[in-house]
Amino acid sequence: MIRIGMGQIEIVPGNPRKNKETILKAIAYAKALRLDLLILPELAISGYLVGDAWDQPAFVNECVKMGEDIIAATQNIAVVFGNVAVDPTKHNADGRSRKYNAIFAAQNGKILAPQESPYPFVIKTLDPNYRFFNEARYFTSLTTVAYELHRPIEELLGLLPFTFKGQPFTVAPLLCEDSWDENYLVSPTTTLHEKSQLLGTPIDAYINLSASPFTLGKNERRHRIFKNQAKELNAPIIYINSIGLQNNGKSLCTFDGQSTVYNASGDISIQLPAYEATVMPILLERLENLTYEPVNLLEGQPVARKSFKPAKPNEIEQIFKALQYGIRTFLQQTGIKKIIIGVSGGIDSALNAALYATILKPDQIYLVNMPSQFNSSATKDLAAQLAHNLGCHYAVCPVEDSLQLTTKQLSNLVFTQPSGETETLAISSFIKENIQARDRSSRILAGVAAAVGGAFTCNGNKTEFTIGYATLYGDLAGFLAATGDLWKYQVYGLAHYINQEIFKRDVIPQGTIDIIPSAELSENQDISKGQGDPLQYEYHDRLFQSFIEPWNRLSPEDILLAYKEQRLEQLLSIPQPIHHYFKTAQEFISDLERWWNLFSGMAVAKRIQSPPIIVVSRRAYGGDLLESQMKPYYTETYYALKEDLLNANH
Amino acid sequence: MIRIGMGQIEIVPGNPRKNKETILKAIAYAKALRLDLLILPELAISGYLVGDAWDQPAFVNECVKMGEDIIAATQNIAVVFGNVAVDPTKHNADGRSRKYNAIFAAQNGKILAPQESPYPFVIKTLDPNYRFFNEARYFTSLTTVAYELHRPIEELLGLLPFTFKGQPFTVAPLLCEDSWDENYLVSPTTTLHEKSQLLGTPIDAYINLSASPFTLGKNERRHRIFKNQAKELNAPIIYINSIGLQNNGKSLCTFDGQSTVYNASGDISIQLPAYEATVMPILLERLENLTYEPVNLLEGQPVARKSFKPAKPNEIEQIFKALQYGIRTFLQQTGIKKIIIGVSGGIDSALNAALYATILKPDQIYLVNMPSQFNSSATKDLAAQLAHNLGCHYAVCPVEDSLQLTTKQLSNLVFTQPSGETETLAISSFIKENIQARDRSSRILAGVAAAVGGAFTCNGNKTEFTIGYATLYGDLAGFLAATGDLWKYQVYGLAHYINQEIFKRDVIPQGTIDIIPSAELSENQDISKGQGDPLQYEYHDRLFQSFIEPWNRLSPEDILLAYKEQRLEQLLSIPQPIHHYFKTAQEFISDLERWWNLFSGMAVAKRIQSPPIIVVSRRAYGGDLLESQMKPYYTETYYALKEDLLNANH
Repeated sequence: MIRIGMGQIEIVPGNPRKNKETILKAIAYAKALRLDLLILPELAISGYLVGDAWDQPAFVNECVKMGEDIIAATQNIAVVFGNVAVDPTKHNADGRSRKYNAIFAAQNGKILAPQESPYPFVIKTLDPNYRFFNEARYFTSLTTVAYELHRPIEELLGLLPFTFKGQPFTVAPLLCEDSWDENYLVSPTTTLHEKSQLLGTPIDAYINLSASPFTLGKNERRHRIFKNQAKELNAPIIYINSIGLQNNGKSLCTFDGQSTVYNASGDISIQLPAYEATVMPILLERLENLTYEPVNLLEGQPVARKSFKPAKPNEIEQIFKALQYGIRTFLQQTGIKKIIIGVSGGIDSALNAALYATILKPDQIYLVNMPSQFNSSATKDLAAQLAHNLGCHYAVCPVEDSLQLTTKQLSNLVFTQPSGETETLAISSFIKENIQARDRSSRILAGVAAAVGGAFTCNGNKTEFTIGYATLYGDLAGFLAATGDLWKYQVYGLAHYINQEIFKRDVIPQGTIDIIPSAELSENQDISKGQGDPLQYEYHDRLFQSFIEPWNRLSPEDILLAYKEQRLEQLLSIPQPIHHYFKTAQEFISDLERWWNLFSGMAVAKRIQSPPIIVVSRRAYGGDLLESQMKPYYTETYYALKEDLLNANH
Repeated sequence: MIRIGMGQIEIVPGNPRKNKETILKAIAYAKALRLDLLILPELAISGYLVGDAWDQPAFVNECVKMGEDIIAATQNIAVVFGNVAVDPTKHNADGRSRKYNAIFAAQNGKILAPQESPYPFVIKTLDPNYRFFNEARYFTSLTTVAYELHRPIEELLGLLPFTFKGQPFTVAPLLCEDSWDENYLVSPTTTLHEKSQLLGTPIDAYINLSASPFTLGKNERRHRIFKNQAKELNAPIIYINSIGLQNNGKSLCTFDGQSTVYNASGDISIQLPAYEATVMPILLERLENLTYEPVNLLEGQPVARKSFKPAKPNEIEQIFKALQYGIRTFLQQTGIKKIIIGVSGGIDSALNAALYATILKPDQIYLVNMPSQFNSSATKDLAAQLAHNLGCHYAVCPVEDSLQLTTKQLSNLVFTQPSGETETLAISSFIKENIQARDRSSRILAGVAAAVGGAFTCNGNKTEFTIGYATLYGDLAGFLAATGDLWKYQVYGLAHYINQEIFKRDVIPQGTIDIIPSAELSENQDISKGQGDPLQYEYHDRLFQSFIEPWNRLSPEDILLAYKEQRLEQLLSIPQPIHHYFKTAQEFISDLERWWNLFSGMAVAKRIQSPPIIVVSRRAYGGDLLESQMKPYYTETYYALKEDLLNANH
């Protein structure tokens, strides 16, 4: 029986010192439990998302040195961990020092080299280059090394030949993407398997060291892939993922752990909880058929071969956990202890307030209602009600005086030219709307934040971000857009969840959930007259989703073709027939073009200057979706379809 | 004699329709000149920096279809152009459709396939993945195709066997990075050369189709590399680069053209001007030694073999051209016709005003001076003088009333909690500084911009961006930070250049150049008392430069080691001995840590929300330098050095 530690540790990106301490503690704990082998995640010393810190030789060297300290600390235990490896005699394709995303194995203070590897460590074979993954930018992959050495990749992939209690124990080492091989030309897993068969050395366990950020649906997909592999390989797979919040500037990614052991039958034996740092001891028990069976050590006596079914959390619960962990950790990392939230009485700000209230104490939260003449008493009361429910600091800070001052000052402003010509400004109703929005955020909220020594939030959602339905330096400002990756329907879903499951009472007032969503920035947005946002969220959420979330993203051409072929409802998963939302093709097309123009035009300019977002979806704005500021574009096929549809209509 | 057209066309990113039109015009012109071959740039239909538009199959298909139209338009001429190529039977490593960055050659309406290539087009071999280059994210390289087909890369690289006037003319096709091969394991140039020797088919010309953004020093490096190659290969190299402004959101890159023909002796025969779209006809004349010699057709009678020496522009002149082209094109692309600039009387805003005045008419520019009690009459007068010199619209819009209103409103604000506790805010002098900055940008400039239907600028420079010496939603706001990639010394250099060389008079008042740089946001920043920015620009410009611009970026460890070894002056190229700036090691270290903490801490958060920047340096903030928001970090070596130095001091 082999005693293994699942090292689901919390990694702080860009802090090798802190991560080394964490790892040394985990090793000490593992030794105290008399474990044979401790498995730690990918890039456990540096963190995964550290931007271009890889261009700083001092940072890279620090990681390498701390890796050596870890190796030295492996007396009486074996440890496997991910770290950057450097070959100073070679360079990457960019001319910088040669860096590998690598696995180090060590036992009794010495490195245990993988068999046949050209280096005393394992080099990642498959380097992902999509979403926030940029490994070709930083690391040389085993594929390139094979080319360089004129040897087949297969030859260079090696097993780790451990010996525990005098018995050999052969481990097949993999790094994250190495196991997600379906679209690659090489399968490290299959190669290692075939090789072990050729050598007559059965693999006792596959291990996958990961730094894998949470995304809705990711773990379900992982389970499908890893279960199949374990079954086919007839060997357990131990997947170790880190905990942490790492970012690439615009995107905050939560690393959810959920490290899992799959047994040789393809069942899940153990799955560690999401977002909880832990070293979980397990036993691998040798069976008659020579494969190992994992058993949870903490359950006391090793329990035999019973399959473990992790509870399947629903989408909203997963979102809540990711946001709660993400916000909490971001506040720790940035040292922010006080949060200022502009509350309008509407759903987005109420959700943000409630969300922060699950993390901070009420007296760390400052809610500010900033009414103008256009805000209804209904929403003003709802804002006060929210503050009362949460027990937070609350103040009302009207913007009327300031709006009048600004309007007057701008209206009276006279521009002169040396030629003697003068020009004055006309302040339209639309301009006043944006003045209000900027006044609230850049003047009041930023001022209050500075005065209390805290930060103010951006309460925007993904639907708004998509079309830039927000004012730059106004409601688009803030230190973090915690709910910026949530569609409006998810905003409502999460509000409901927080009331029901977390507070178990309506901290977000029912009125806030019931009123029509409205910006209340002009007399044309009067909720008492039912005048709300220019969006039919039920339809537009799904339309906008199709612009960004499918792996192959949709364009107006695809939308219009589906409309013409009467399969748009199915394509977008909208509940009503499309004519429920638009009476004519002309109406439908005008609406489509209106939003596509904004999505691919002005909204891009706004997103360039918008706050970081916590990623929960398959594609979030920010470093996950790279955007260029360009003119909106419609294909030739789109124009042909449009002409067809509009002519058919007449 | 072969008549060739150097197709230095202007490419609009993300607009295949427009680019196809441009190309068809270039072809018609080339036909009118009876050219044999027209060479166009890399990715001439899509543009190069189009973000993740490659995830939209409709966009990719549009580019492919327009490529077919171009092939059909090659009756009586040969054309070589860059475009995306798709293989619908295969996929990229990310699972999306297989895309190649490719060269298409066509003659008389038909594709001319490269010899031995697995496809009827040339696939880029070397894919750059640094700075704003992300090709592994979108394209499959020839290296991968070779692995997939189990064939050596060398076999798949093919020549283009043209026939002109009944004579064979063999072209070696390369795509941008293919020629910059020094750090790669494969050299497409060498391979094609060796292959032609093996086949007994001499290469008549190498062509390199590029989409290569301007960076200071890039063209000098290109000349070195290409001259050597041409000489060694004993054949001309025709380098065709596009013109254009393309961006990845945060970074606006100017594509400078400067397409060049290198003759077989390694000399530059012809170099096209920077930022000028043109189709330049040249002759390739066959010499006795069987190589071709390029001759400029527009010079009338072909002139024999004289070497062409392009004027070597200085750094500031290059910066000016890049910024002028970049701003002008960005205004065209975004449709912005009126520019609002907050002018303080200081150098940064004056430079921006003068820069825009080289592009727009005076009546398209609105200068606004927004004094508070802390602004000196000296700077207020200088702002007025600037406006007068440029002939722009000018207005003075004091912020005192608004500051008082905000200070009073915030001071009177009472936060209550349901528990009955109340809290009021204290507005410190530092908070008032930031209130002023935000008031100017988010309230006044944004309001004026909306009222005149224009956009307001961010006047920040790279020194400020480095340490976040600017207020978010304040002076860090704006639609574009045109001078955001200029160090303070370059700001002065460019101001001088614009006065001397462009306007040939002091449009930027001498007083603005002479006064001490100061934010004038409090009584402690009184220029009449000589109280300016907390920076010694002569030193700090160079220190900050070392944090980002070297290919291997420096960290405090490197700086401190050089300081200890008394070679910091040399490392940073500072004019005075370091003790001129800092009397003691303690002072030096405090200063270093102060700025490193900001650079790698709060300033990152600010840069995440800052405007786009026009790239001129080897490394600009934005999409060129990927940053994660993390805690500032000092290595163990740094702490040891620091202890040494501070102990030695006592």
